[in-house]
Amino acid sequence: MFLHENLSVQDNGRLAFCGRDTAELAEQYGTPLYLLDEEGIRQRCRLYRDAMAEYFGNGSMPLFASKVLCFKRIYEMVAEEGIGTDLVSSGEIHTAVKAGFPMEKAYFHGSNKTDFDIRYAMDCNVGYFICDNEWEIVEINREAEKRGVQQKVLLRLTPGIDPHTHQAISTGKVDSKFGVAIETGQAEAFIKRVLTLKNIELKGYHCHIGSQIFDYKPFTDAAVLMLDFIAHIKEVCGYQAEELNLGGGMGVRYVESEPQIDYRENLRGIAALMKERCAALGISLPKILMEPGRSIVADQGITLYTAGGLKEITGFKNYVSIDGGMPDNPRYALYQSPYTVVNASKADKPADYVCTVAGRCCESGDLIQENVSLAKPEKGDLIAVLATGAYNYSMASNYNRIPRPAIVLVDKNGRDYVGVRRESLDDLLRNDI
Amino acid sequence: MFLHENLSVQDNGRLAFCGRDTAELAEQYGTPLYLLDEEGIRQRCRLYRDAMAEYFGNGSMPLFASKVLCFKRIYEMVAEEGIGTDLVSSGEIHTAVKAGFPMEKAYFHGSNKTDFDIRYAMDCNVGYFICDNEWEIVEINREAEKRGVQQKVLLRLTPGIDPHTHQAISTGKVDSKFGVAIETGQAEAFIKRVLTLKNIELKGYHCHIGSQIFDYKPFTDAAVLMLDFIAHIKEVCGYQAEELNLGGGMGVRYVESEPQIDYRENLRGIAALMKERCAALGISLPKILMEPGRSIVADQGITLYTAGGLKEITGFKNYVSIDGGMPDNPRYALYQSPYTVVNASKADKPADYVCTVAGRCCESGDLIQENVSLAKPEKGDLIAVLATGAYNYSMASNYNRIPRPAIVLVDKNGRDYVGVRRESLDDLLRNDI
Repeated sequence: MFLHENLSVQDNGRLAFCGRDTAELAEQYGTPLYLLDEEGIRQRCRLYRDAMAEYFGNGSMPLFASKVLCFKRIYEMVAEEGIGTDLVSSGEIHTAVKAGFPMEKAYFHGSNKTDFDIRYAMDCNVGYFICDNEWEIVEINREAEKRGVQQKVLLRLTPGIDPHTHQAISTGKVDSKFGVAIETGQAEAFIKRVLTLKNIELKGYHCHIGSQIFDYKPFTDAAVLMLDFIAHIKEVCGYQAEELNLGGGMGVRYVESEPQIDYRENLRGIAALMKERCAALGISLPKILMEPGRSIVADQGITLYTAGGLKEITGFKNYVSIDGGMPDNPRYALYQSPYTVVNASKADKPADYVCTVAGRCCESGDLIQENVSLAKPEKGDLIAVLATGAYNYSMASNYNRIPRPAIVLVDKNGRDYVGVRRESLDDLLRNDI
Repeated sequence: MFLHENLSVQDNGRLAFCGRDTAELAEQYGTPLYLLDEEGIRQRCRLYRDAMAEYFGNGSMPLFASKVLCFKRIYEMVAEEGIGTDLVSSGEIHTAVKAGFPMEKAYFHGSNKTDFDIRYAMDCNVGYFICDNEWEIVEINREAEKRGVQQKVLLRLTPGIDPHTHQAISTGKVDSKFGVAIETGQAEAFIKRVLTLKNIELKGYHCHIGSQIFDYKPFTDAAVLMLDFIAHIKEVCGYQAEELNLGGGMGVRYVESEPQIDYRENLRGIAALMKERCAALGISLPKILMEPGRSIVADQGITLYTAGGLKEITGFKNYVSIDGGMPDNPRYALYQSPYTVVNASKADKPADYVCTVAGRCCESGDLIQENVSLAKPEKGDLIAVLATGAYNYSMASNYNRIPRPAIVLVDKNGRDYVGVRRESLDDLLRNDI
């Protein structure tokens, strides 16, 4: 009945997540509470893994984009499903290492890796660097030389595709803080320089065109452009890229008005067009990498809150107050992101009460969603915000010195367990002198 | 020469903060680094304290608005300067208690205090609750009754003033998640109910009209409206408020185009108009409280970053990458807030290089400022972002699993000391199972 498969309504009228009564989980762990569907996450990993192996072949593989949701347990799951990961900081590297992730499958991203990051990544035997720019490649080469190793590298290039999504999450355009532009000729000059560096093993290129893309045309546009560029560089430099990383960006359904996405069909479509183009160019299809993150975890998570009460301002608006908000989910404040909100205590009742769901912070902009419809809440009702698996915990702050919620996973047998403990009041001032 | 008094240029051309070479502090503590001017903060506390005592009299006092910058040491400073504080969560209460703050001077805010918060605040002997709504007052009364105490309370009311600032930080309008509206008649009904509650000692009202207000007219408009309401309630209920809290909102100068603000003169002007109004209404001036936060700390802090390098996209834009960004300062991403950026390594050179200052996160929106002018940086130069004392550390996240920076204070003798330790990589996964 609801937006995603892991949601259902129980006989008692309450919302269930992975078959578990949300009220029982809230009772046990408190609110706000992040819930994750372990098996749903694993299935998405396998979907990408199997579809990419089938359609692209040649060792092609998804890399879980850690930045959407990073904690130790998720790396264990990703590793068990046999896929790689992309990491964007020493903190993510450290977490993956502590989880025992096979680091040869790790790709290290970042538009401004510090010298410490470069050393730390090599200390941890990160498989690949995805190098963003010229000053970085110099440092990577210097550090690799010092250690007497060859460092495998992909170069981040900007193909000049605007996927017509939100400005703040469009990254493949020429005017970008990421990578080196193809259109301006700067990418070609960069590659020529990289090919002269003794301790760099250039494996190929990376591009990322943006986020929350529903249509697979932007991906194929970018992929074709990158294949043309691979053929061009082969011609002018005699170097053919073995690997091509197409980045992330597949959309996720946050609200009913958004389409359901057939990820497998998208991958099939991209592969077919790429193979055609390779044949036309007379080059072999490289090993393809992709970086799904949001589309692996977003709809595999929900957040549970407790309603504080209703504020009905005569002639204006109705506010439902919840016991979390922008500290645990800043996406509405940042991007006016759409979310579906459900009264989990009355999930069988008509969703006909129009209201603004407001967080508990002392800040007017602390809203989770405006003008949504849900069954009219009473104080103490559980409020569920759907599809919060991505960019919620990972972006959470302690604004207003509010502790970050726990992450609880429900496994395929319906058993719940803690992935990240709730912060305590003492945790908040652990580093205060 | 620069925006604020605590900034100067040394003979070696580098930026000094409180007379200290920023390069030496960065060398000692690493970057990113929050720096605070202890004496500057104390002076602002004293300015508000003394001006409010002089102009308003009757025990009038500023309350430091903790949410702008909350850590143990700041409560020690605030307490030593003899002013109060406003707190918005159990986390802030906990921090103040651990710092030994005199809790009778603490006012507990929040539009959705949980039952736990209400109990915890009473456990900690918080002096006042600033009660937001009807369901909360019921809980406060119930809890006070259980303990056999009278709880001092102010009621948060919305006077219906739009201070014409950014939507997200305008909170005094009728359509607000905060407080109870005067205009709709709801406030009057609320007060009548509160006056019947046996364990509530109603001390007065609170209003807050918004943030970053340069003109003092909005404050006097709100103050006059509140005085009229006090007189009205005296007439209809026979209850005269003893205390009136005018909230916060005085502006801070982030960029040169913004005015310098004479806080003392503003307070004098507000007091004069309020006294006039009281005389006209035939009521005595209540004890006045205000909640300065930003105007106490914002321009008493800067953030130091290290430049990673320049990305000059031919025909488009220049990007300067820094080793921090939206995790330590999300205000540009959230509100497009203006900031002044200085090349601290070349502070004596002309600020003539136009660029966008981009953070290190894997997110296009991770920018600190667009199209600012600074002396052209080289890799390794120190970049200072000015007036970051408010809403930077307090809003910081671990997005991209990036550790939060340290806070270092410089005292009036030029001695530096740590207020909050830098997070370690191990800190990041302290709660991971």
